[in-house]
Amino acid sequence: MASSSLSLNDNLNHHLFTLFPRPNNIKLTTKTNVTNYKTFSPKHQPQKTTAMAIRSGSSPSSSSSSVSSTSTTPHFPKSDAVLSSDYHLVDETNLVNPEDERPLNEIWREIQGSDDWEGLVDPLNSHLRREIIRYGEFAQACYDSFDFDPHSKYCGTCKYQGAHFFEKLDMADRGYKISRYLYATSNINLPNFFQKSKMSSVWSQHANWMGYVAVSTDDDEIRRLGRRDIVIAWRGTVTYLEWICDLKDILRSADFGPDPAVKIESGFFDLYTKKERGCKYCSFSAREQVLAEIKRLLDYYAGEEISITVTGHSLGSALAILSAYDIAEVGLNGVALGDDQNKIPITVYSFAGPRVGNLRFKKRCDELGVKVLRVVNVHDVVPTVPGIIANEKFQFQKYIEETMSFPWSYAHVGVELGLDHSQSPFLKPSKDPGCAHNLEVHLHLVDGYHGKGKRFCLVSKRDIALVNKSCDLLRGEYSVPPYWRQDENKGMVRSSDGRWVLPERPRLEGHPPDMAEHLAKVLMLKSTINGNGSPRLEAA
Amino acid sequence: MASSSLSLNDNLNHHLFTLFPRPNNIKLTTKTNVTNYKTFSPKHQPQKTTAMAIRSGSSPSSSSSSVSSTSTTPHFPKSDAVLSSDYHLVDETNLVNPEDERPLNEIWREIQGSDDWEGLVDPLNSHLRREIIRYGEFAQACYDSFDFDPHSKYCGTCKYQGAHFFEKLDMADRGYKISRYLYATSNINLPNFFQKSKMSSVWSQHANWMGYVAVSTDDDEIRRLGRRDIVIAWRGTVTYLEWICDLKDILRSADFGPDPAVKIESGFFDLYTKKERGCKYCSFSAREQVLAEIKRLLDYYAGEEISITVTGHSLGSALAILSAYDIAEVGLNGVALGDDQNKIPITVYSFAGPRVGNLRFKKRCDELGVKVLRVVNVHDVVPTVPGIIANEKFQFQKYIEETMSFPWSYAHVGVELGLDHSQSPFLKPSKDPGCAHNLEVHLHLVDGYHGKGKRFCLVSKRDIALVNKSCDLLRGEYSVPPYWRQDENKGMVRSSDGRWVLPERPRLEGHPPDMAEHLAKVLMLKSTINGNGSPRLEAA
Repeated sequence: MASSSLSLNDNLNHHLFTLFPRPNNIKLTTKTNVTNYKTFSPKHQPQKTTAMAIRSGSSPSSSSSSVSSTSTTPHFPKSDAVLSSDYHLVDETNLVNPEDERPLNEIWREIQGSDDWEGLVDPLNSHLRREIIRYGEFAQACYDSFDFDPHSKYCGTCKYQGAHFFEKLDMADRGYKISRYLYATSNINLPNFFQKSKMSSVWSQHANWMGYVAVSTDDDEIRRLGRRDIVIAWRGTVTYLEWICDLKDILRSADFGPDPAVKIESGFFDLYTKKERGCKYCSFSAREQVLAEIKRLLDYYAGEEISITVTGHSLGSALAILSAYDIAEVGLNGVALGDDQNKIPITVYSFAGPRVGNLRFKKRCDELGVKVLRVVNVHDVVPTVPGIIANEKFQFQKYIEETMSFPWSYAHVGVELGLDHSQSPFLKPSKDPGCAHNLEVHLHLVDGYHGKGKRFCLVSKRDIALVNKSCDLLRGEYSVPPYWRQDENKGMVRSSDGRWVLPERPRLEGHPPDMAEHLAKVLMLKSTINGNGSPRLEAA
Repeated sequence: MASSSLSLNDNLNHHLFTLFPRPNNIKLTTKTNVTNYKTFSPKHQPQKTTAMAIRSGSSPSSSSSSVSSTSTTPHFPKSDAVLSSDYHLVDETNLVNPEDERPLNEIWREIQGSDDWEGLVDPLNSHLRREIIRYGEFAQACYDSFDFDPHSKYCGTCKYQGAHFFEKLDMADRGYKISRYLYATSNINLPNFFQKSKMSSVWSQHANWMGYVAVSTDDDEIRRLGRRDIVIAWRGTVTYLEWICDLKDILRSADFGPDPAVKIESGFFDLYTKKERGCKYCSFSAREQVLAEIKRLLDYYAGEEISITVTGHSLGSALAILSAYDIAEVGLNGVALGDDQNKIPITVYSFAGPRVGNLRFKKRCDELGVKVLRVVNVHDVVPTVPGIIANEKFQFQKYIEETMSFPWSYAHVGVELGLDHSQSPFLKPSKDPGCAHNLEVHLHLVDGYHGKGKRFCLVSKRDIALVNKSCDLLRGEYSVPPYWRQDENKGMVRSSDGRWVLPERPRLEGHPPDMAEHLAKVLMLKSTINGNGSPRLEAA
């Protein structure tokens, strides 16, 4: 008992120190790439003995006295954060869900949703937490690499070549490689979604980079995962939500499968299926690009244990669900051929996603075994659209949809993991809808979520500074600038003769030459299943 | 005749090529530090055979046909700039003022204004053009190094240590070294001028970095200049002009010299003379800091040929004129002691400066031999304040000032170099007062100015991209983003354990220990001249 009490105090002191570093711990250096820095609260938290910040009306006397001791750097006054803070730390070891001791490679099918995440979401399983964050970071990579700058002539492209993608994003250790970039035409009616260059010389008048397909190639990672994983990540919008208003809120038949009653929102449908003959990057639709690439990869890795994981945030979530459904409906993963034994699981990690289709669409996804985990923030408006009136919560939805053919009936697919950003003591109150919708905010909340009604308590060492990457939600005492993600000098660099220029970027590959061939195989597969070719899938 | 015609064509082709590089000249590279880039118009312009861009209604057929030839980079469509451009280049050799063949070190006193720039401004002398730009860049360095970010806890400081200042700004080749940083207290009534941190932990509650004193130390540069040069550069405001509204427009006696009728605007006076006892950086006023440092340097370099050059933009120009006057009035440069033969010339290069004092102040500056070259843009509002009603253009100013003691009478000091940004074909029309006031815009205009009524024609190789560093004035066809100067990730860097942090900065030195000693010498000098000590100058 005495030793346990000592250990508690030791932990407490450790956490107090990391939350409020003493000013004389501040190292001053002239280097730009510093190794000395002021740490944030969650740093050095042991995985199982986790510190928890809770709100308190009283001032934290022990912490403030420990900090107000003599400082050796009088020129930089000690942090006021200590005095103004209304937080203190308590040891909440017992409140953190226990670690799942089974290795991931034994239970990966369960973690990917084979049992609809029964018993894994509340309380949140430790493997699942890490996998949600890991796939969320694959989706976040689409934002961190996208050229949003309308003054860049490469606006609308990915800033990096596929071969350097993960390396440029400090994600080389993930053990994945890009196998294909995905594009969509912007010649559809979603004016507030696409990024267009204001510059006269642009890389393409019609295309926007929409994401990528990547494959786990590192042997250690494949062993850890228990299978080779194919990731499809779709780009959405970081904070700008005006594209919601562009949604026509009109359902149309997906016509990917035999049942015309399966309907999806027509804007998402257009984004996924439209193409532009004259454009190098979108002469095939996003749909054709992804189906051809998945077919190619499945052929290439035939015989291996494989998973297909689709991830996306915001509008990218809609594309994720749509493409996952499509892959299953076309039968690429084997299930449509009746080979349930060897079917390749398809899982969607959806973040802040809108509804995609009608109730029949949801049911068809269930029939096909497409598993969707929907991570949402209750303060975010996007998951409430489209279908604000008639949705899965309306008890007569089936009736109005099937009998009345009510055209504005939408249903969410899958299992919801509901988060609440007001529960994180690291975040300040905000009414900014962009912040509530922000993907990094969701990942922070997943890190601290333990179950409905349970206290927020960070588990991993995930950096809280990431929250403010593209929003303003971290409390001021963490001294993290809002919206801090930006390129040095907007990408301008000095050339060898001293002039400032926007460097030319390496050319991005268009469609690979063998794409039509793989697409033809998809068509053959489809006609085997459905007895007819899709009117929309065409080999070039 | 034939050979001259050939040479003209060669030049023309050369210029067309540099203005509109052929798409197949675009090199594609994966490196970030590129050496291949698309060049802008003024590049490679020979110093004497200068290209000139003029507006034209007709499309430049020769250039467009040269560009529309087959491209080897079909993925990046050829620049539309060629087709949409309304510029073409003509050889304007005869329109550029001839180069002054005399070396600078022989005529430097004249260039520094000993004859009030008689015959040097219109047409603009080639040495003077380069010196204006060189000193303007010393003033610009105050902006490029200043931490404006209210979310930085170092907001209001210089981002670099003095020892690395010019190196960090790519100005190491200037041959100057920082000898002292200058600070002012923000506890005066100019709320829209000072930058204050929103962060709880700030470097100083009271101080703002205001500029620097630097000395030419490179032997080659001293030889080229003909003397050792001491530069004082004062920081102003980049684009935010609200501080104009803070000016109380009230004149008060400068009391630096014997004549109480010499008056200056009280806001500038406060900024220059106020101090804050408790503050490490402003326990001496800006005035005391600069006088002590100039005294120290003049003692140290006693016997050498020396010049004092003061430079500043906007509010920094007011401080430049005020401090130049002060140095002369106190007699640091020797003139007040009657030693006109050995007097050290004091020159102010003022950019976009407001009026500073009354007519008597102007006359006293003239008496003391303080030379001021005022570089202004006719579209800029700042040089029209204070004193919009009663100023040097009002014929009865002397009467209302001396007889009526009219309290709002201001006069500009020195010689004006009037520029007009609508004359530069590189710039687009703009009503943004911040752009008209921008220092980089002024430097661009100096580069192309030849005299009143003469055509704008760039002379040096000065990079036009600098215009858009902190404004949006370059025409779109140059593909330079507006407001492009920004730090990567707002200064956030990844620490050794992968977390994003704002690194601690090296501490900035406060006042040097021997400052009081040098200030005491200034006081002694002053009492020798005036017979009394200044009530405001105090040795610590």
